[in-house]
Amino acid sequence: MSTSTIGAAGARSHKVFREVPFDGTTLRVPARRVQLGNGESLDLYDTSGPQGHDRRVGLPKLRGPWIARRAALGTGNVSQMHYARRGIVTEEMAFVAAREGVEVEFVRAEIAAGRAILPANVRHPELEPMIIGRNFLVKINANIGNSAVASSIEEEVDKLSWSTRLGADTVMDLSTGKNIHETREWILRNSAVPIGTVPIYQALEKVKGRPEKLDIDIFLETLEEQAQQGVDYFTIHAGVLLRYVPLTAKRVTGIVSRGGSIMAKWCLAHHKENFLYTEFERICELMKRYDVSFSLGDGLRPGSIADANDEAQFGELQTLGELTEIAWKHDVQVMIEGPGHVPMHKIRENMDLQLKLCKEAPFYTLGPLVTDIAPGYDHITSAIGAAMIGWYGTAMLCYVTPKEHLGLPDREDVKQGVIAYKIAAHAADLAKGHKGAQERDNALSRARFEFRWEDQFELGLDPQTARAYHDATLPQEGAKTAHFCSMCGPHFCSMKITDDLRRLAQEQGVGADEALARGLKEKSDEFARRGGALYS
Amino acid sequence: MSTSTIGAAGARSHKVFREVPFDGTTLRVPARRVQLGNGESLDLYDTSGPQGHDRRVGLPKLRGPWIARRAALGTGNVSQMHYARRGIVTEEMAFVAAREGVEVEFVRAEIAAGRAILPANVRHPELEPMIIGRNFLVKINANIGNSAVASSIEEEVDKLSWSTRLGADTVMDLSTGKNIHETREWILRNSAVPIGTVPIYQALEKVKGRPEKLDIDIFLETLEEQAQQGVDYFTIHAGVLLRYVPLTAKRVTGIVSRGGSIMAKWCLAHHKENFLYTEFERICELMKRYDVSFSLGDGLRPGSIADANDEAQFGELQTLGELTEIAWKHDVQVMIEGPGHVPMHKIRENMDLQLKLCKEAPFYTLGPLVTDIAPGYDHITSAIGAAMIGWYGTAMLCYVTPKEHLGLPDREDVKQGVIAYKIAAHAADLAKGHKGAQERDNALSRARFEFRWEDQFELGLDPQTARAYHDATLPQEGAKTAHFCSMCGPHFCSMKITDDLRRLAQEQGVGADEALARGLKEKSDEFARRGGALYS
Repeated sequence: MSTSTIGAAGARSHKVFREVPFDGTTLRVPARRVQLGNGESLDLYDTSGPQGHDRRVGLPKLRGPWIARRAALGTGNVSQMHYARRGIVTEEMAFVAAREGVEVEFVRAEIAAGRAILPANVRHPELEPMIIGRNFLVKINANIGNSAVASSIEEEVDKLSWSTRLGADTVMDLSTGKNIHETREWILRNSAVPIGTVPIYQALEKVKGRPEKLDIDIFLETLEEQAQQGVDYFTIHAGVLLRYVPLTAKRVTGIVSRGGSIMAKWCLAHHKENFLYTEFERICELMKRYDVSFSLGDGLRPGSIADANDEAQFGELQTLGELTEIAWKHDVQVMIEGPGHVPMHKIRENMDLQLKLCKEAPFYTLGPLVTDIAPGYDHITSAIGAAMIGWYGTAMLCYVTPKEHLGLPDREDVKQGVIAYKIAAHAADLAKGHKGAQERDNALSRARFEFRWEDQFELGLDPQTARAYHDATLPQEGAKTAHFCSMCGPHFCSMKITDDLRRLAQEQGVGADEALARGLKEKSDEFARRGGALYS
Repeated sequence: MSTSTIGAAGARSHKVFREVPFDGTTLRVPARRVQLGNGESLDLYDTSGPQGHDRRVGLPKLRGPWIARRAALGTGNVSQMHYARRGIVTEEMAFVAAREGVEVEFVRAEIAAGRAILPANVRHPELEPMIIGRNFLVKINANIGNSAVASSIEEEVDKLSWSTRLGADTVMDLSTGKNIHETREWILRNSAVPIGTVPIYQALEKVKGRPEKLDIDIFLETLEEQAQQGVDYFTIHAGVLLRYVPLTAKRVTGIVSRGGSIMAKWCLAHHKENFLYTEFERICELMKRYDVSFSLGDGLRPGSIADANDEAQFGELQTLGELTEIAWKHDVQVMIEGPGHVPMHKIRENMDLQLKLCKEAPFYTLGPLVTDIAPGYDHITSAIGAAMIGWYGTAMLCYVTPKEHLGLPDREDVKQGVIAYKIAAHAADLAKGHKGAQERDNALSRARFEFRWEDQFELGLDPQTARAYHDATLPQEGAKTAHFCSMCGPHFCSMKITDDLRRLAQEQGVGADEALARGLKEKSDEFARRGGALYS
């Protein structure tokens, strides 16, 4: 069991459970409570999941009884959308409503309308339900997974646990190397967050890496295998149509999605339409039996600034909109994947077009990166685009780590990626005026202004790093209560001077803030009366 | 002499000089030429300045003869704006025009109109001229400087040199500790970029840290001392008016600008108007004799999301607009400092209002930080806001390092801050459609697509880090020419598959890209003729 305080319960914070009555039982909804030095406390959304379990056993099966009860309905379609559209409120919806601080009926209605998804495979009972939609908190996804070249199962389960403690809302297992099935099993049994995969990777392994050997049967067999394990959403590149492939020929970076390039190669090799598109309803039939959600892949997303918002990209987006309606016909939940590399002035067009073409299905974007020139820093180039597109309406942001374009992320890269994306998602919540989002900023800023250093650290996204940076110059314990820091020293601390200023006002008999304001207003009115601005 | 390749001439790049004839002499304008593996090359804007000199001697005095020649004009006003308005093109303007790739007349006109400044104190002959204005490349500033608690002169000169090699366009020396004068002297004599200061810090030292003891004489004496040394721009908080101070009383974080809080305390202690405001024309008289530019300080900038865009902040901005016109009456160059902490949806209002109130004088912002919740990562929270406000029209972005709010930046923090801001500035240039900005992105993306790994590293903002990240998984020299990387391995590399795809098309006799496109178009037209979209 890790004792890291980052993102999870720290020295001055602990996990609490809100008890929510539901249909004769009680749901226990987790949060992280930060206990502040001034006696106040603040509850934060918590993604860390149960801690301290034996990995070989896996997490407790929270959803077990819920799923069993509903099995009695026997409709064959177990999707949350299916229930929502029939007016049935599930435990998952109630759980999510408490987590987000909204009415349960609002959750149900958003899922029914397709504006939000609640990815929750019935074979993944370990899940703590969460929701993805633009009228809820903006979510982030962390990618993990080994490749033929690097990493082990143990490392991947570590990254899963690490990224959810840091705040990842979902995790995608993008493994392509050996032991794909076994790696995924370990990940699912130990994950309290939804797990996504790109099944074409495993299907390709089954045909020994030769895209042209793929067919719908191998693909469906792979889906069934992964759905039975409990995968909550599948990235499926059903929008890479034969007629879009030539549109990529003149691009600077061609096709940069792995799944997209595999399907493009298949189409070209056979001179046939993408079988994921032609057999799409068979895929829907399978997915609704488990409640696996679609994450419709953007196989033709731009891989460079030069290729942003081109005909290939937007052509595919239109097809994804068409497929969304088919999935909805089956009550299968859908989100839509988005770019990629897009300069700032072209970001909003992506969002507006996605909402229009895909009928408000949640958008799930990779960044976008707003410039190509910073390999090694693409968590930053992409956090800029992610924050903006989150503000514009993207529901979930897929993180990018500093290793993007260069190598597989290690533990430290995962941390840098998750934190950059927690920043982007929260900045988007603030800009959208999401109810309650600013409470944490206000609590932290008040702590900062009142020199409650420990509170400032603990309310931040990474208390350990903040504390270490502070201590790099002023390691003494006393400095944690000092009314200045090493940036300015005591004479130049503006916050200290402002404090002095208030004190000065008090000595002069002006009293509290309000009185100070009143008193100074008089003075300045007087000044204005005596001639006002000197240079007007 | 440092041998670091970051930002400056690296293993595969070197400095070149473009020779520009000017009035009988020749100006030598620096650039960094990156030599690519495919035989092409790309010249990049270069801020590194002359390398390998003795710090005790200082840099060569490039501008010495230029300044001497103009002294003969004897007008008493030596500002670039003064010359520009009289139709005189200076060496500095010609140098800048070549550096930015624009017409010299355009440079003169922008300076004359006040839309751009060319900060260049006549006592700073070591300077390589640069320009700050929204119709030029977006610039970045790095803050250095010791405090009473930490750092030495040697360290500060190191940070100066380090930050300009990384790409800082100007540097502010914010020293507040001992040896302010001497530290500044070392910095100026070794700086090829404009140096800015906040003179009130030194003035406060002269009155032993007691703001109420300040007066205009001590302040002017300090300005004269610093102007004689060669400081290129002064931050002056002349907009903190008595009547604005009470507006900050109810804020979450009061006044967070050091200079702002000092002047607020002075105003309150004396119940008088800010002497920097009442004596503003005396300050202008002094500054025009050296060509020191104003950086009108935003002493009341918001220090938290809660305080953004409030009455105090915008009241001060209005006063800065008023002061701008007074400075322009004296032909003194002006830029305007901006926030601070601002959520994304309130950023544009800052820019629009600044352009209107300050008559298009260049805006120079600190971030803004788009959330308060990430101490330790404020280079990222602020790079998001900086990129956006840069796109909207800010001319220079003042960096924020990871240590912001926590301590003084060390060498590594300076690097992280500069690179985050190079990203923000370049992203803004791209979004503004600045001529030529995208060439570097395109060159890097082409290198990426063609697996020219060394070119990809060298074209990035930090070649060493990119190379190290790549080598972390695939250290073998052969991997630098491999057509895959550790992210996906050979089977799953989309770029490799795309390459195969083109090859496949060629084998099938389709030939080059254009032919491929044509051939595939036929196929897909055929497909469309046979029924088109399956689900339409």
